Amino acid sequence: MTHSELIDDLVAANRILAYRGIFDAYGHISARDPSNPDRYWLTRSMPPADVTAEDIIAFDLDNKPLRAGENRLFFERVIHGEIYKARPDVMAVCHNHSPSLIPFCNSDTRLRPMVGNAAFLGEGAPVFDIRSVDDEGDLNVCTVPQGSALARALGPHWLVLLRGHGAVVAGETVRQCVRHAVIAEANARQQIEATILGPVRFLTASEIAYARRMKPKDADRAWRHWKRQAMAS
Amino acid sequence: MTHSELIDDLVAANRILAYRGIFDAYGHISARDPSNPDRYWLTRSMPPADVTAEDIIAFDLDNKPLRAGENRLFFERVIHGEIYKARPDVMAVCHNHSPSLIPFCNSDTRLRPMVGNAAFLGEGAPVFDIRSVDDEGDLNVCTVPQGSALARALGPHWLVLLRGHGAVVAGETVRQCVRHAVIAEANARQQIEATILGPVRFLTASEIAYARRMKPKDADRAWRHWKRQAMAS
Amino acid sequence: MTHSELIDDLVAANRILAYRGIFDAYGHISARDPSNPDRYWLTRSMPPADVTAEDIIAFDLDNKPLRAGENRLFFERVIHGEIYKARPDVMAVCHNHSPSLIPFCNSDTRLRPMVGNAAFLGEGAPVFDIRSVDDEGDLNVCTVPQGSALARALGPHWLVLLRGHGAVVAGETVRQCVRHAVIAEANARQQIEATILGPVRFLTASEIAYARRMKPKDADRAWRHWKRQAMAS
Amino acid sequence: MTHSELIDDLVAANRILAYRGIFDAYGHISARDPSNPDRYWLTRSMPPADVTAEDIIAFDLDNKPLRAGENRLFFERVIHGEIYKARPDVMAVCHNHSPSLIPFCNSDTRLRPMVGNAAFLGEGAPVFDIRSVDDEGDLNVCTVPQGSALARALGPHWLVLLRGHGAVVAGETVRQCVRHAVIAEANARQQIEATILGPVRFLTASEIAYARRMKPKDADRAWRHWKRQAMAS
Repeated sequence: MTHSELIDDLVAANRILAYRGIFDAYGHISARDPSNPDRYWLTRSMPPADVTAEDIIAFDLDNKPLRAGENRLFFERVIHGEIYKARPDVMAVCHNHSPSLIPFCNSDTRLRPMVGNAAFLGEGAPVFDIRSVDDEGDLNVCTVPQGSALARALGPHWLVLLRGHGAVVAGETVRQCVRHAVIAEANARQQIEATILGPVRFLTASEIAYARRMKPKDADRAWRHWKRQAMAS
Repeated sequence: MTHSELIDDLVAANRILAYRGIFDAYGHISARDPSNPDRYWLTRSMPPADVTAEDIIAFDLDNKPLRAGENRLFFERVIHGEIYKARPDVMAVCHNHSPSLIPFCNSDTRLRPMVGNAAFLGEGAPVFDIRSVDDEGDLNVCTVPQGSALARALGPHWLVLLRGHGAVVAGETVRQCVRHAVIAEANARQQIEATILGPVRFLTASEIAYARRMKPKDADRAWRHWKRQAMAS
Repeated sequence: MTHSELIDDLVAANRILAYRGIFDAYGHISARDPSNPDRYWLTRSMPPADVTAEDIIAFDLDNKPLRAGENRLFFERVIHGEIYKARPDVMAVCHNHSPSLIPFCNSDTRLRPMVGNAAFLGEGAPVFDIRSVDDEGDLNVCTVPQGSALARALGPHWLVLLRGHGAVVAGETVRQCVRHAVIAEANARQQIEATILGPVRFLTASEIAYARRMKPKDADRAWRHWKRQAMAS
Repeated sequence: MTHSELIDDLVAANRILAYRGIFDAYGHISARDPSNPDRYWLTRSMPPADVTAEDIIAFDLDNKPLRAGENRLFFERVIHGEIYKARPDVMAVCHNHSPSLIPFCNSDTRLRPMVGNAAFLGEGAPVFDIRSVDDEGDLNVCTVPQGSALARALGPHWLVLLRGHGAVVAGETVRQCVRHAVIAEANARQQIEATILGPVRFLTASEIAYARRMKPKDADRAWRHWKRQAMAS
């Protein structure tokens, strides 16, 4: 994948997640630079639906823009740097306020995989409570201690819920990160509805373990479909 | 902010709230005149989606139009005057029938903040029962005793639910008032869904207190995004 | 109201109810002829979204088309004739499968008014079970005994639910009938959500009695807004 | 029905199911060849929303494409062949991940008919668990043993739910198969909502038996309406 293909994927990722209601005016997704793992690409602070290639700029893992003079930056970009530091396997990070995930952020009920393509949720998504870092403050993840505690809460998972806030989703690629975010939202909605019906059967431990070893079949079909829908909107 | 900027914000507010399903054929939002706190601006009685600058007229705090001969007026404009009288800090008032708020209007379960940007809900939104004013009648707030009782029920809060009716939302600006209305609807939906999952964790008292002291970061990004969406529709 | 205004309202009613998801491919709404109470106007059997003035034909109260040779007719038009016979005050009848009403059709929980404009639901909508007429058959109301039993189940109400089927809604005018149908759908959704929160407070008996005596304020504003939305779609 | 009419129906079926959210990027529907019951027609592996007549190719009941050199094929096409082998009366098969069906896939609560047009669900939809075939693996139905076990789980029914996965729907025609899929999704949503209200009354055994003997009235009206909506989108 060339650099321009990566930027193209990041633009599409912003548009897809906005089109599907996972981003509203807020939310951001970054990609680690494949040619320099100590850098990542992220948009300026702006609504995801409006992102173009020109809005994507490079940061070091301390979340400093490489080009001097940038001043419209996300306050919460520390999330990206800290996760890239803690997880060498992660190549893309997304922070969102995905509507159906919020109920799980504020509940003891764990978000668990309903269907095969949600196996990345494993035994259930961890929940990060920012008050484990600071006794007081708002809910935003803006400092290195907050970001590194969030990265620890993520641990080896692909999604961590933030109490009173939203979610952080990781992927081995931008496309996988988007897929995780889209599937998590659908899974959450379906788990809430299943809870109404009574006890819920989730994927089994062996199914989750199997999914960890195997690649999904034809995952790019969804990416291409979602991209076409979003870019045409 | 100039007068024409204020009117422009009021038009956009009507369009945003209609676009997002918080207003349907009914609902209204007003702004106190910053150069004369004894006056406020409100549209004629009409569907919010159709509002233009020409539809916005000035009222005194007794809800009389300043210009003689106006006859298409909201029956419930007393809500605006009574809240402006009772709350000098309030510069914008919105009355709506926001769909996800109705269940909380008719329940002992309080609407409480799920996420950081809903901290303005505090320890929970109060509920006003119009039958505490009149033993009999409809649910509309049309008289001064009804309006002033509603203002008392609002108290120092930013949102009051009306039993069997809807909500009244206040703000320090038109934009903040719209933000309160949009966030309240989302918060209500998410609280209902979280209730299905089991006991709900809300913002802590210290988080609510912190939010009262601090301004939200970059709140205007949502306004600009919502406005562009609504005006393009 | 002239005859052409009545037909215009019936066309708009079909389009509004289709636009708002209360009609899908099925559903029908009729108007009693104000100049001849023994006749009513109803479309041919067709999807409501496609209705034009040319599709509306006259029937007698035995549900026979006045013009010979009509053969695309609704099987369930007996609903209209039997209700017009039983209820001289009813000037419009709508049969639909409004999605949020179905859960109440199949439940002991009564559909009851959440908000002032739903006061027409009174102490709760009755439920008609077609198996009280025939021990066996489908769920459609196609015979005079079925239609007249349905009209008896409606009694003095404005809405009757049909077990395993949908609803029949009545009005003093086409516009009121549409308003009843739209409000019933919203009320049902909100009552389901409120049930999740705990015990639900409905309108009081005195509020329902008051609404029976009084006309709603400015009801035509919703009609005009809904019509403009639907006709532009 | 000519061959080109059948292909036209298959194209419309893909578009309808995509338009109505029953297919997303995945899902497929096939038709048995009426002139040769040992063959069926199915699209290449592609998003259903993009299907045209050129994308539909012929398979034998061992799921081999009749024309050599085809390589973009659905991994799960074994579902189609095995059901056509087991059920001579079935002329169309659809596999989907219909969102409101997923909660029933993972629950002991059976999906049962709420309304007359859902009578094809009978006493309740069976649930197939792929782990009854293999102790380990993913959730996809890709092998003959998996496909034939699925066909056995379907038995004489028209819909089988797949634990952790989705549904397989059958029909006597493409149009009936689409109708089953659309109605099942609506029925599932309404059953979940009815469960919130309390015990649910389903169709009676005699109503289900009656529906088995009788054709629905005017079913093609829905097909034509859904097709026009989907093709115009």
